[in-house]
Amino acid sequence: MAKTKSESGDEVPLGSKLRNSIGEGARRGLGIVDLVLRVMAAMATLISAIVMGTANQTLPFSTQSSQFKANYKDLPMFMFFVLANSIVCGYLFLSLPLSIFHIMEVASVTPRLILLIFDLMAMALATVGASTATSVVYLAYRGNVAANWVSFCSQFDSFCRRISGSLIGSFGAVLAFMLLIIISVITTFRRSS
Amino acid sequence: MAKTKSESGDEVPLGSKLRNSIGEGARRGLGIVDLVLRVMAAMATLISAIVMGTANQTLPFSTQSSQFKANYKDLPMFMFFVLANSIVCGYLFLSLPLSIFHIMEVASVTPRLILLIFDLMAMALATVGASTATSVVYLAYRGNVAANWVSFCSQFDSFCRRISGSLIGSFGAVLAFMLLIIISVITTFRRSS
Repeated sequence: MAKTKSESGDEVPLGSKLRNSIGEGARRGLGIVDLVLRVMAAMATLISAIVMGTANQTLPFSTQSSQFKANYKDLPMFMFFVLANSIVCGYLFLSLPLSIFHIMEVASVTPRLILLIFDLMAMALATVGASTATSVVYLAYRGNVAANWVSFCSQFDSFCRRISGSLIGSFGAVLAFMLLIIISVITTFRRSS
Repeated sequence: MAKTKSESGDEVPLGSKLRNSIGEGARRGLGIVDLVLRVMAAMATLISAIVMGTANQTLPFSTQSSQFKANYKDLPMFMFFVLANSIVCGYLFLSLPLSIFHIMEVASVTPRLILLIFDLMAMALATVGASTATSVVYLAYRGNVAANWVSFCSQFDSFCRRISGSLIGSFGAVLAFMLLIIISVITTFRRSS
């Protein structure tokens, strides 16, 4: 096999050197994808929290049985959704400098492992927030005959459109976290091989 | 530095050889923890699915407004919970041979990466199942005044105890998955370093 002198003077196989240089480029590329995914997930959770947090409808008419106002604070799951998305969004913005650092300084494995553990926790929080809100949105649209829970989306149509729309960003962020974790694992594995 | 002859005849530093041999032991240890966690999570999701799937209560009395029977099939979130836990449990049992293989054959990195991606998806499924069921259990206990959804746990007390008890195993499995993923990442990183 063709060999070349390394900086320290030892002979290293040329194939190995070439593979390392390709690996370096791929790592930087994955680092940029990591940064873009973080920015997109941060924006998605921010928009989700704002859309849910500002969902508000007052009916122009009222009957004895129906409510006058609908607000995200009426249901604890929606409050949890706003809180969870805010926390995840804050974490994502805080993780951006570390993500940028990873693009420039590709040799750091331990900070990446710590980031991966935090990503995993943030993903779980985002999933719990989105899932609990989804089940309430489902009940708001469909109601439940067995439990005698009536749907309220026939009256509060614009409120329901907002709360169901806000779920999209949150589930998008969950998918972004799954990709971020897979990218982290691939990069950590490649870096140290 | 003290050096020793390796099998191929090249000289390798003694410190490096010692570190590798310690790493091997730690890897096998982590492999056993991985297997134990998988078995525990599989049992937890199986018990959760069975407890929820067999939750059933018929009232000895009835009024015009209250229901006669409560079953997990009354609420789609509980059916999803049983389905999600069954899928995750099946996956965990299928992953056991690969986990055992990882204890014996420590050099395989690619199967571990594939397993990690599946673990991540199974964790997301378990989290969604547990969260949606939790929000319905919360509504069953507390009801919601704003949405005019009444609590039914005052009547169906034994049914509610079962459905809330079934959540424990599912959330336990989510925690086990987080540990499994962290262990996989640490092992993959150590193996290839």
